[in-house]
Amino acid sequence: MCGIFAYVFQNKELSTAALIDIVLTGLRRLEYRGYDSAGICFDVGGPVPQTIKKVGNVGVLATHVAEFVKTLCVNSMFHGTGISHTRWATHGAPTDANAHPHGSDDNNEFVIVHNGIVTNFSDLKAFLVSKGAVFHSQTDTEVIAKLTKYIFDQNSNVKPMTFPQLVMLVMSEIDGAFGLVFKSSKYFPGELVGCRRGSPLVVGLKTDKEGTDVLSSALDSPSMSRTPFEVFMASDASSIVEHTRRVLYLEDEDVIHISQRGMQIYNRLRNENYEKLKKELRPMEQLEMELANIMKSGYDHFMLKEIMEQPDSVVNSMRGRVNFETGEVKLGGLVKYTETILKARRIVFIACGTSLHACLAVRAVFEELSAVPVSVDSANDFMDRRPPIFRDDVIVFVSQSGETADTMRALEYCKEHGSILLGFTNVVGSTLSRSTDAGAHLNAGPEIGVASTKAYTSQIVTMMLFALMLAVDRKSKSARRDAIIRELQRLPELITQVLATEKQIKELAVSLKDERSILIMGRGYNLSTVLETALKVKELAYIHTEGVHAGDLKHGPLALVDENLPIISVATRDGCYEKMKSAIQQVRARKGRPIVITSGDPDDEIIPFAESILRVPQTVDCLQSVVNIIPLQLLAYHLAVMRGMNVDCPRNLAKSVTV
Amino acid sequence: MCGIFAYVFQNKELSTAALIDIVLTGLRRLEYRGYDSAGICFDVGGPVPQTIKKVGNVGVLATHVAEFVKTLCVNSMFHGTGISHTRWATHGAPTDANAHPHGSDDNNEFVIVHNGIVTNFSDLKAFLVSKGAVFHSQTDTEVIAKLTKYIFDQNSNVKPMTFPQLVMLVMSEIDGAFGLVFKSSKYFPGELVGCRRGSPLVVGLKTDKEGTDVLSSALDSPSMSRTPFEVFMASDASSIVEHTRRVLYLEDEDVIHISQRGMQIYNRLRNENYEKLKKELRPMEQLEMELANIMKSGYDHFMLKEIMEQPDSVVNSMRGRVNFETGEVKLGGLVKYTETILKARRIVFIACGTSLHACLAVRAVFEELSAVPVSVDSANDFMDRRPPIFRDDVIVFVSQSGETADTMRALEYCKEHGSILLGFTNVVGSTLSRSTDAGAHLNAGPEIGVASTKAYTSQIVTMMLFALMLAVDRKSKSARRDAIIRELQRLPELITQVLATEKQIKELAVSLKDERSILIMGRGYNLSTVLETALKVKELAYIHTEGVHAGDLKHGPLALVDENLPIISVATRDGCYEKMKSAIQQVRARKGRPIVITSGDPDDEIIPFAESILRVPQTVDCLQSVVNIIPLQLLAYHLAVMRGMNVDCPRNLAKSVTV
Repeated sequence: MCGIFAYVFQNKELSTAALIDIVLTGLRRLEYRGYDSAGICFDVGGPVPQTIKKVGNVGVLATHVAEFVKTLCVNSMFHGTGISHTRWATHGAPTDANAHPHGSDDNNEFVIVHNGIVTNFSDLKAFLVSKGAVFHSQTDTEVIAKLTKYIFDQNSNVKPMTFPQLVMLVMSEIDGAFGLVFKSSKYFPGELVGCRRGSPLVVGLKTDKEGTDVLSSALDSPSMSRTPFEVFMASDASSIVEHTRRVLYLEDEDVIHISQRGMQIYNRLRNENYEKLKKELRPMEQLEMELANIMKSGYDHFMLKEIMEQPDSVVNSMRGRVNFETGEVKLGGLVKYTETILKARRIVFIACGTSLHACLAVRAVFEELSAVPVSVDSANDFMDRRPPIFRDDVIVFVSQSGETADTMRALEYCKEHGSILLGFTNVVGSTLSRSTDAGAHLNAGPEIGVASTKAYTSQIVTMMLFALMLAVDRKSKSARRDAIIRELQRLPELITQVLATEKQIKELAVSLKDERSILIMGRGYNLSTVLETALKVKELAYIHTEGVHAGDLKHGPLALVDENLPIISVATRDGCYEKMKSAIQQVRARKGRPIVITSGDPDDEIIPFAESILRVPQTVDCLQSVVNIIPLQLLAYHLAVMRGMNVDCPRNLAKSVTV
Repeated sequence: MCGIFAYVFQNKELSTAALIDIVLTGLRRLEYRGYDSAGICFDVGGPVPQTIKKVGNVGVLATHVAEFVKTLCVNSMFHGTGISHTRWATHGAPTDANAHPHGSDDNNEFVIVHNGIVTNFSDLKAFLVSKGAVFHSQTDTEVIAKLTKYIFDQNSNVKPMTFPQLVMLVMSEIDGAFGLVFKSSKYFPGELVGCRRGSPLVVGLKTDKEGTDVLSSALDSPSMSRTPFEVFMASDASSIVEHTRRVLYLEDEDVIHISQRGMQIYNRLRNENYEKLKKELRPMEQLEMELANIMKSGYDHFMLKEIMEQPDSVVNSMRGRVNFETGEVKLGGLVKYTETILKARRIVFIACGTSLHACLAVRAVFEELSAVPVSVDSANDFMDRRPPIFRDDVIVFVSQSGETADTMRALEYCKEHGSILLGFTNVVGSTLSRSTDAGAHLNAGPEIGVASTKAYTSQIVTMMLFALMLAVDRKSKSARRDAIIRELQRLPELITQVLATEKQIKELAVSLKDERSILIMGRGYNLSTVLETALKVKELAYIHTEGVHAGDLKHGPLALVDENLPIISVATRDGCYEKMKSAIQQVRARKGRPIVITSGDPDDEIIPFAESILRVPQTVDCLQSVVNIIPLQLLAYHLAVMRGMNVDCPRNLAKSVTV
């Protein structure tokens, strides 16, 4: 996830400083979407625009821009554009060079900002390098800028082309997800083109004449070329709402073009013939939401938004890494380590909190697919023990932020012993990312809620891909591998299904909200699920909740069971189902109140023993924990809300524990 | 721990069947002290007594004895003796042959029952074998019987000797702990000699003339040879109280002799000249306790008794295994595996419940002393995962009962993979004991309370000995090794000190008894302590108590902290002390109520942050968990008692989980 903000004004007078101010103010509103670097590109009156980009948040960028503004000699313009970007790194560390906007060449004939991932960027880059392009960044985005200029140079000599025609040709070459805004001070001064596939892009229009009934087509007329108007394009409406409430949400493959003549919209899928583009008719909407709601995409809290994002965030974690047709799985950075890892003495996962639970969730599948011994260590306990580490160990560090202090200390310790160090983090350029030999990014997008939700499922999915890579050469595992890959493809759909049970989960939350203690039991692949749920309920709803292995119930916790204690039991259909059934029966026999999460049929034999039932869709055992955790995240969320807690900022806790 | 019951009657008529009945009834009362095999030896009127011994409890023995009684032709005698034993195996599996009593030869000229451990039994056995002795059992006890006859044969030809003289010579050759009763139908008909060192032995006297003022000396007179009287000797008074309340508790090195002339008592240490024994004057006591109390040695519950036994049970775990002068540590069965273990890929500990916590308690010291990677797995989770296991893995199974079903299933699974399998259990001849390649017994004595206490500390101590063995050849670890051994020697004293804080713990229990939730935090060597405490409080007091790693507090559980939640913090002085201090300060800053367990001075800087303080004695870091768990066992116990729970039989739980 990144934030794009673009601005164009037509037929009115505005100073460059004012233009910059509008753009930076808009960008600030999007900072929650990413904050590792920011950049801006704006007109200064000539064919070469000015680009400023810096590591750090928008505040850092603004300081540098302010310095520049002092040197400006242009005072005002009659039309002008500015595009800007705040970044959440996915390809390439957060450096000045990797910050957006990216230019096509030294003169920045084409400049773009991008939110998303170009999955075929390696191929495109190789092609462009062969044609003489020189790249200045490690991003996938720079490829788009260079490609734009390449296509323009190849075609415009033959036949003149409009800006949207050019963009459509570019789009047809790109695989992946994107929201894009294109600017070309040289060839299309005062114009902007936006387009999207997968990533969001919203357009706001401001004219003197207000109203919601204005159709896109009405904005496309010769009369517009005398009317002053302004257009805003952004990743979400939060940065637009202070200027105008007349907005248009782009659809996939939409291309929007703003020029002196107004605003035109096209859809690439309905325009096979680029030479004669067919305009779309599209109504503008009146934005009713408040600012805070827009940032949260209409959800009450970031946490809920992030829970709901999971059908997308798991896709983002897999994008460009899994070929569902061929079954090929590739985490670029890890390819060359595969052989060594398979010969390792052992694989040690080290993490804290929710990340530790993600490691537990994948432990068994690593053991199964790699046939290497796997242990999982809490970073804290690891550093208390300072255990022996060997050159032939592979140590895997997992942290959403990549800055978790306890995990980083363990990383430092392991560095001294010469083992292979791998990292899984959501933040490109984080300490974890920089300090490991290799690894993979989660690509889940920034996580704002203190309680980690989408990063957890993305950790499981991304590490699962790693496990699948390790099994590629094992014939005996190929059926298993195929089954997992098939279910990975279905995962977004399954998550969508389970999110649809929210109403039922809310009812469950009502019944539990006054409890002071809750047990949650599971086993096998769902031991992680119960530990993670307990942590979530604890940290958000402040109810003392404990996750226990169902098999350990009889070694102690069963003594707690009586008619008062609610016991959530995760009993989806896998190798542990029969044992879970017997545990639930034991709880019932002791007058306990099992709340059962099942993937079975309505006539499942577990049902008579349950006080209440929550049905989730069935998937392959090792991915079931991804499906199962989601209703439990929702449960923790609703419990917290019902108990009047601030879910986005639980007492006593910080988002990433860097001390 | 084993149970001894012996009976002698003088100057009265009694049938053999009645003699047997008295002995077996007494033995039944002692069954809680051991129940893997039982045996009896009684007079049948001639110089060769009858011995019957069987695997199983006293009930099994009684069936066999009843069969024998049908064949009896002697009807009554004017004096007679019977000795019996119920066994808790330490040396040698529970078999008929290993059951007590043990005889000196085929005619059973001398027969003995024994409670304790002879530490120099290998040397004595080798010597006796060289003299032609043939052994029928693997026990240390049989050595004593053979040695008695050997000494008698060597000396009695030269000069006649009394039975107590003979026993004193035998005692002077034995190292270790014992309570012993000797019988010789051939040479000393109608007489019994009892003696003790370390193990308890109580003597009861029944005559027509009742009274507590009778001194031992009064029982030793020519007039006694006409007075009918009966004497009972037993490991504790529970089997005596139904016959008489006049008892005498033997002191270390005491030798008691019952003959037709009455009862004489000697002390070996005050009799360097065995030829002219000096009789002791010793008052008899009047037993006031009730039967149930006697079985519990005066404690209200077995659990409390077992907690209080820990100064002894840890000694029993070390007896014959550590030479505190030379620093030599030897767990017989494990010696030949030491080399192989040090070359292992990894050591995997597998256990459940309290045993699992013991493994966590020693994990770090194994890593440190062996430099082999160590992982600890819950047997349940291990079997859910069925992970890869290799020939060069060493798998260590730990179970008090040696029958824990989940652990046994893991053992079966590992057997298929050809790794070295080791076992630590309290029960000789248990499935665990029989199914592993090697291992060590805890020698903690039978544990009756469902909540494991003394077995836990003995597990830590016994496994610590194993870790010390592994480091014997590492020069860099010799100072560390010495420090641990020094503190092992002090351990009984430290446990005694900490048990003396019981009053304070009771007060703490009063303040906590109405809580519904308790957190307990620790780290490093004391992570195990907090997990074990939480389990104990949960299973006994039914308060929802959770043990957390203090470093993980900020990854979630800190959200639970408020002015209501009590938080017990284990912050004794070790490498984690500073971190514990900071965790306690954090809790305090959030208005939490830390109850701090510390080993620091009264001016310890942690004290201002504590709501209350419990001071424990300081020892070496890796043994501190043994000291620290004891007040927490007491806390769990008193919480349970105050809340009116049945501590010896918590609801829903069984002593050993064999299903």
